[in-house]
Amino acid sequence: MITTVLLCTLLVFAVGVCNGLQHNHVLEEFEPVSQPPNRVSLWPLPQKAQISDVSFKLASSSFRIVDDKDSAGTGCVLLQDAYKRYFEYIFGFAKKSGASRSRTTDQAELTELKVLITSRDSECDGFPSLTSDESYKLIVNKRSAVLTASKVWGALHGLETFSQLVYEDEYGAKTINSTKIHDFPRFAHRGILLDSSRHFLPIKVILANLETMAMNKFNVFHWHIVDDQSFPYMSRTFPQLSVKGAYHPYTHVYTPDEVKMVIEFARLRGIRVIPEFDTPGHTQSWGKGQTDLLTPCYSGSKPSGTFGPVNPILNTTYDFMGQFFKEISSVFPDAYIHLGGDEVDFTCWKSNPDIQKFMNEHGFGQDYTKLESFYIQKLLDIVSTTSKGYMIWQEVFDNGVKLTPDTLIHVWKGNKQQYQEEMANVTASGYQALLSTPWYLNRISYGQDWQGVYKADPQDFKGTEAQKKLVIGGEACLWGEYVDGTNLTPRLWPRASAVAERLWSDVGVTDISDAFNRLSVHRCRMVERGIPAEPLFYSYCPHEYKGV
Amino acid sequence: MITTVLLCTLLVFAVGVCNGLQHNHVLEEFEPVSQPPNRVSLWPLPQKAQISDVSFKLASSSFRIVDDKDSAGTGCVLLQDAYKRYFEYIFGFAKKSGASRSRTTDQAELTELKVLITSRDSECDGFPSLTSDESYKLIVNKRSAVLTASKVWGALHGLETFSQLVYEDEYGAKTINSTKIHDFPRFAHRGILLDSSRHFLPIKVILANLETMAMNKFNVFHWHIVDDQSFPYMSRTFPQLSVKGAYHPYTHVYTPDEVKMVIEFARLRGIRVIPEFDTPGHTQSWGKGQTDLLTPCYSGSKPSGTFGPVNPILNTTYDFMGQFFKEISSVFPDAYIHLGGDEVDFTCWKSNPDIQKFMNEHGFGQDYTKLESFYIQKLLDIVSTTSKGYMIWQEVFDNGVKLTPDTLIHVWKGNKQQYQEEMANVTASGYQALLSTPWYLNRISYGQDWQGVYKADPQDFKGTEAQKKLVIGGEACLWGEYVDGTNLTPRLWPRASAVAERLWSDVGVTDISDAFNRLSVHRCRMVERGIPAEPLFYSYCPHEYKGV
Repeated sequence: MITTVLLCTLLVFAVGVCNGLQHNHVLEEFEPVSQPPNRVSLWPLPQKAQISDVSFKLASSSFRIVDDKDSAGTGCVLLQDAYKRYFEYIFGFAKKSGASRSRTTDQAELTELKVLITSRDSECDGFPSLTSDESYKLIVNKRSAVLTASKVWGALHGLETFSQLVYEDEYGAKTINSTKIHDFPRFAHRGILLDSSRHFLPIKVILANLETMAMNKFNVFHWHIVDDQSFPYMSRTFPQLSVKGAYHPYTHVYTPDEVKMVIEFARLRGIRVIPEFDTPGHTQSWGKGQTDLLTPCYSGSKPSGTFGPVNPILNTTYDFMGQFFKEISSVFPDAYIHLGGDEVDFTCWKSNPDIQKFMNEHGFGQDYTKLESFYIQKLLDIVSTTSKGYMIWQEVFDNGVKLTPDTLIHVWKGNKQQYQEEMANVTASGYQALLSTPWYLNRISYGQDWQGVYKADPQDFKGTEAQKKLVIGGEACLWGEYVDGTNLTPRLWPRASAVAERLWSDVGVTDISDAFNRLSVHRCRMVERGIPAEPLFYSYCPHEYKGV
Repeated sequence: MITTVLLCTLLVFAVGVCNGLQHNHVLEEFEPVSQPPNRVSLWPLPQKAQISDVSFKLASSSFRIVDDKDSAGTGCVLLQDAYKRYFEYIFGFAKKSGASRSRTTDQAELTELKVLITSRDSECDGFPSLTSDESYKLIVNKRSAVLTASKVWGALHGLETFSQLVYEDEYGAKTINSTKIHDFPRFAHRGILLDSSRHFLPIKVILANLETMAMNKFNVFHWHIVDDQSFPYMSRTFPQLSVKGAYHPYTHVYTPDEVKMVIEFARLRGIRVIPEFDTPGHTQSWGKGQTDLLTPCYSGSKPSGTFGPVNPILNTTYDFMGQFFKEISSVFPDAYIHLGGDEVDFTCWKSNPDIQKFMNEHGFGQDYTKLESFYIQKLLDIVSTTSKGYMIWQEVFDNGVKLTPDTLIHVWKGNKQQYQEEMANVTASGYQALLSTPWYLNRISYGQDWQGVYKADPQDFKGTEAQKKLVIGGEACLWGEYVDGTNLTPRLWPRASAVAERLWSDVGVTDISDAFNRLSVHRCRMVERGIPAEPLFYSYCPHEYKGV
């Protein structure tokens, strides 16, 4: 076997990062390592990993990923699909058996990765959830490697990690080092928000980003599917919403079958799809296909012809919402729906005499947050009847709306001090919190802004241990004003990868320089898998992006 | 014929911008119009244009672009190539004869665009230059349209404009309105700088951007081909430069054939290729393949093992430069070479005792700008023997180096006040100037930063008319620290389009709102032609980008 030192010397020109491998030796006990071999570049960094300098070769002609004979996941289609995907990632789509050529007889070969699902219910046909067990163990130390997980969700993450462990030796032969990994996420909710309203996102773009999310162990696709600008969701119950509210009723909509496809594509990668139907603000596009849903604004004593937020004083509004969310709750299998509730502009409500009358009758005075809360309260009651839990933007909490205890409060506003105070307040009130403020990746600036993204931590606020435990994670948000299919993917990746590691890896994984090295390699890995992830700084990838 | 009002009413949903067409009528005399029909969206705006509401249909089965019988360009391959390209732009690559279906007998049809080159020498087989005649006239007012230009370069621009005039009516039929255009550029030098050193840019990416440059009437590709980070230019004379200095000697280099292909691809689109070989700074990668070229830096009394700028005190340096630039001058046909000369760090020169001795011998004292000028002076003399003119970054002028009168000074530094003073100083000294400072498009910020780009004007400084005439144009620069094939194209377009209009159109074309409307449509046109140009703001394109 070629010694590791030689291997690194030879690799250093081609890859530039090879430290680590020379200095790691087999450890008999698990202990957290913050810096595995850079050449291998695990991202996000596993909780516990040891990588030795004993290596094995993998031949595409013989290597197989198989169910362990005792696995509860035997015959699981989700896993079969993943085996094929990761085999292709490891060996490349075009290469058939090239890696075998450099095999020599004195080299140990890894012929198999056995996947063992230990729980009686593998959840193969189920959906991932906030409480899914995503942990896994991976052992590579003889001709047959073993990946053990309680559920398929952990197995998916383990397969991604396994694929990240495989590298090419100086002759291009696929190689993996003896390794022990025990891994699990720090936070249960690790999301990406994409906005398909400001710009319509072709299904292909959404699927490519789900694919990339899986490479980064994200597990929630927060689909901000409609907003003021357009309503691309094709509703079975209210088809006029997209006929009138989409940018185009045929070319710029998501059909029920397409939505189903997105959900299944995500499920196969351990990703939940949480749709957001934001009300009562952000609803201009809803009004086009649903008469009387929005509040008519007045100019003096007459309607101006423009409309404001959802009209909270009509019974028809709540009839509509009841039917609409009944549909949504059946279309989207996840236990949560995001109900929005942010940025309600009171100008139009204030102009409308019927609203003013209603305010007086209900003793709301001039406090329009009370009217907002009145609406939200009724909406939450409606959604509760569908047996769904809900996520809401922080304003709903700030305005004192009565919430069910399992409500997830999504923090998005303010500067660092302000969002930390908000996280403290939300959790002090006993609610679970999600952070997004430092992760508005639509905001861009010149240079390596991933570093600021990487440094933010959702548990970094003043509070008790009990409060910290109420932090269930966070989401990177890519609002759609300035992105569409032309630039979304390189703008999101690898900047969102920085969020991925913060939400998955141990709290102590904060070394920027190590992160830079690993993320640079991870970026090239995404590029090699066909994802146009942009560079961190000047550098090159062995296989540059072939698109334009 | 369908009236224009109806046409606009029907189109308004699909396109959103249709004003203009209703309000424009046939004018018998040329006069500048700042706002042609938005539906048509000419970009950059022609100097003089009239568009009436009389329209013609174009059928892909019958429409042809042909040489006028009296044209000096008959049989010119450059034109034939362009006819094919623009036919495909107009009718779409996939569509064969779809547009014919909606033809009705009562509609006037445009069956021909005749291209007439009036100068005896069409320059069909030549290269564009700083003094090329790029003007053209375009008349569409009967079944046969006529495009007249002195040289092929004007014809190319006219074909682009013609393709921009064609739109789809409400039935998808290709339509063009009766039109008279007389057009010519405001500035002769309209460039884009791409940097293939910080990141290697695959040839495919470079060609796609040349293609897009032609759509925006840019005429100079400033190829910042090598720099500190890598040396991808494969030199016949000094092959070790790329063998040692490229990121990879095979996968990350431009072979002589590839360079030739880029130059020809550009020529066919009326684009000059000006290579930049920046010295004496920015040369770390040169040193890897050329011993003794760079200055050895000292740590105390001993060489530290690191190297600084080109060593200006050795005769071997000038021998090398003589041979190297002899090659460059034959590989690149353009009359100009960009010699760089920016950002020379004196630290290493100061540390080197041989340099200090040389400084004393030449009476330079401690003024290292004198040494820099000594080097540049000798370099300019060398390059002058190749009969090339040169462009240099502003420092060379600032340091008082003696320059030939045709030198182009490239202004890139400072804030607005500073670059305006520099433009004034350069032109007051009688030199021709190019502006880039406000057009460093690698610098990004959140929102519509194209507007600031659009507002900058290279003649906006205090100076005489004679000084203003010395401003030959400008360049949009996309330095490569944070861009490669994954994100370069959407980051550059349509932001560079704002520079394109500033450099082509009349000085009075400054209406941001009109520019927004036209540029939005132009952006979608680029997308439809396969270029992932990013959105300006929330919106949609009839045909969204299909890539990822």
